[in-house]
Amino acid sequence: MPPIVLLTDFGEAGPYVGAMKGVILGIHPKATLVDLSHEIPPQDVRAAAFVLDAAHAWFPPRSLFVCVVDPGVGTARRIVYVEAGGRRFLAPDNGLLTLVLRERRAVRARAVTNRRLFLPEVSSTFHGRDVFAPVAARLARGLPPASLGPPARLLTTFGFPEPERDGSRIRAKVVWVDSFGNVVLNLRDEPVCEIRARRSRIRRLVSTYGELLEGEAGILRGSSGWLEIAVRNGSAASRFGLAAGDEIDARLAPAAPRKKGGRR
Amino acid sequence: MPPIVLLTDFGEAGPYVGAMKGVILGIHPKATLVDLSHEIPPQDVRAAAFVLDAAHAWFPPRSLFVCVVDPGVGTARRIVYVEAGGRRFLAPDNGLLTLVLRERRAVRARAVTNRRLFLPEVSSTFHGRDVFAPVAARLARGLPPASLGPPARLLTTFGFPEPERDGSRIRAKVVWVDSFGNVVLNLRDEPVCEIRARRSRIRRLVSTYGELLEGEAGILRGSSGWLEIAVRNGSAASRFGLAAGDEIDARLAPAAPRKKGGRR
Amino acid sequence: MPPIVLLTDFGEAGPYVGAMKGVILGIHPKATLVDLSHEIPPQDVRAAAFVLDAAHAWFPPRSLFVCVVDPGVGTARRIVYVEAGGRRFLAPDNGLLTLVLRERRAVRARAVTNRRLFLPEVSSTFHGRDVFAPVAARLARGLPPASLGPPARLLTTFGFPEPERDGSRIRAKVVWVDSFGNVVLNLRDEPVCEIRARRSRIRRLVSTYGELLEGEAGILRGSSGWLEIAVRNGSAASRFGLAAGDEIDARLAPAAPRKKGGRR
Repeated sequence: MPPIVLLTDFGEAGPYVGAMKGVILGIHPKATLVDLSHEIPPQDVRAAAFVLDAAHAWFPPRSLFVCVVDPGVGTARRIVYVEAGGRRFLAPDNGLLTLVLRERRAVRARAVTNRRLFLPEVSSTFHGRDVFAPVAARLARGLPPASLGPPARLLTTFGFPEPERDGSRIRAKVVWVDSFGNVVLNLRDEPVCEIRARRSRIRRLVSTYGELLEGEAGILRGSSGWLEIAVRNGSAASRFGLAAGDEIDARLAPAAPRKKGGRR
Repeated sequence: MPPIVLLTDFGEAGPYVGAMKGVILGIHPKATLVDLSHEIPPQDVRAAAFVLDAAHAWFPPRSLFVCVVDPGVGTARRIVYVEAGGRRFLAPDNGLLTLVLRERRAVRARAVTNRRLFLPEVSSTFHGRDVFAPVAARLARGLPPASLGPPARLLTTFGFPEPERDGSRIRAKVVWVDSFGNVVLNLRDEPVCEIRARRSRIRRLVSTYGELLEGEAGILRGSSGWLEIAVRNGSAASRFGLAAGDEIDARLAPAAPRKKGGRR
Repeated sequence: MPPIVLLTDFGEAGPYVGAMKGVILGIHPKATLVDLSHEIPPQDVRAAAFVLDAAHAWFPPRSLFVCVVDPGVGTARRIVYVEAGGRRFLAPDNGLLTLVLRERRAVRARAVTNRRLFLPEVSSTFHGRDVFAPVAARLARGLPPASLGPPARLLTTFGFPEPERDGSRIRAKVVWVDSFGNVVLNLRDEPVCEIRARRSRIRRLVSTYGELLEGEAGILRGSSGWLEIAVRNGSAASRFGLAAGDEIDARLAPAAPRKKGGRR
């Protein structure tokens, strides 16, 4: 039985996550529940997209991700069910699935409209409990997706902040700061050789934190494939005063001369 | 097997919650454990009562709530087991169950006194681990409640802060601030038409956050039935400088003329 | 099936803990996962050692603790598997197991070197996901420890800060501040009769918090066996300005005259 994985901006102090779990367990007592995160900054759909992107592919096939970062709760926004990359997702159609859908064809997407699958009374402020939770529990118990509602076309995605190139320079954005203070950038395959942050120039390219000297800053490819600024046993975010959404300048390495020959 | 649901003020950083779960799993390896919250402010029995109230009814029948917000640990205060509304509760008899017991007749309540159900050595500072956890595990495995101890009468409850009415005015209290900054008040069925908070007058009554303009403040009935002050995509608590325990003034709508007729 | 217990400094907001759980559930779908803590201060191996020490013995025999506080990730540091006190541990060989190994002979210890047990691609920054998680899942499914790698000798331990005695005085260290603000010291069996903290002298020895007056400070033996400074319904850490790593002075009670006689 693949797990039901929860991703919200509800925080862990209050009753919201518990209420969702209670509803799921009432319908599906043997569900395996996993908390991906409930500490997404309030209403920050981009942060949720990043966390989902970094984690989802490590879960077993058919895992069901229930994603409730939903500033439009109670308005006309759709709730969608999507299958992509072998995993399943329930989310408001607000761009939260942008990165999951990148470079993938969604095998199936449906609008979740069948009210008989919801709780009998649906509040206007807490669809996590009244819609997402019961639908997720029924899906995990084997409900065919066709029962959810009609096929959904044109899923909402946003331009995940793309870096802006200008010759050998590139203007990038901070997409996440992790609990160590590592600063994750919207750069993946770019051949960055220098990052400028608050009058500093960071040029040390490493493959892991331990290659840096105590307190030294460096650039490395993090475990999710994005470039990071890191400080050994310290916080790059504090050192350089960076937070999610901030912009930084980087310089690209000159293009290497094309290798000749190759396979022939 | 209904879940064992944990509610404490232990925080999630330290070893306390883990130790409780370890004890439970040692006695009942197949227990389904759910964390309701471990981030209740230290010793804040009222906050625990609110979170329990907002979440418990969404869990399946016979769920067992283990509530350890217990400033009196190690003193003569009782530990009680209560069945109410089809759910089961273990808690110190300090008022934590006040809202759960509201408008309900407890079917059964017992003092938990049978030391043979506790860990062999009971510390004076950590009954969560030494008393609550082993008793919960045994109850979840089917121990008859009569084994716990004698029937308990006169459970402790506190006057959950009642709003004070004065004609068309009402003085209310903040009972909780959620992770979005929504400010939950001790008002349920009162026909509030205006709230005064820090020189502002909030008059916009809405049924969900998305009806507000970006940054606008409004009044709505939250998902637990209590009135809230909310700010669209912002924090009402920050905007109005409100925290749990603070008082605010509200104005009630003039009584609507009684409808005549009715069914006949 | 004994649980897999996770202890990290990853924080709960981001994708790291989720990715580990995803990998574990992919290999061992029925695993019982318990979060001990993910809020260890970044890279604080001593704090992790303390939390593990305080919690591990309460878990059932053969529980598998997966401990990833690992500033040396991706460098030559070893990963070890250790059996001690009937429990099992996976950890970087960086001293994290110091307190668990105290006064115990490790029955078995192995270096974890068998790459066939890891994920096919091992990143240099996230061994929690790529090494610890798959190895833990396989161990929990019954993999014999001999498959992990060669026996490990000379496990790394550090001098957990030992108090310094000077006659009737003792200089101790704060090893942990819990969520209540209780200040845990590196003192266990010493007959402390007075603690000096920020010009105050604390002399009240109690066995539980409720013996203190509201706001009064006292000394007691906490539930993990370490001495604590506590303030009734308040934070001793705030009152006395103490944080983990700080030093305090204490005074020892004069040695009691040896009891004569005894059993004969």
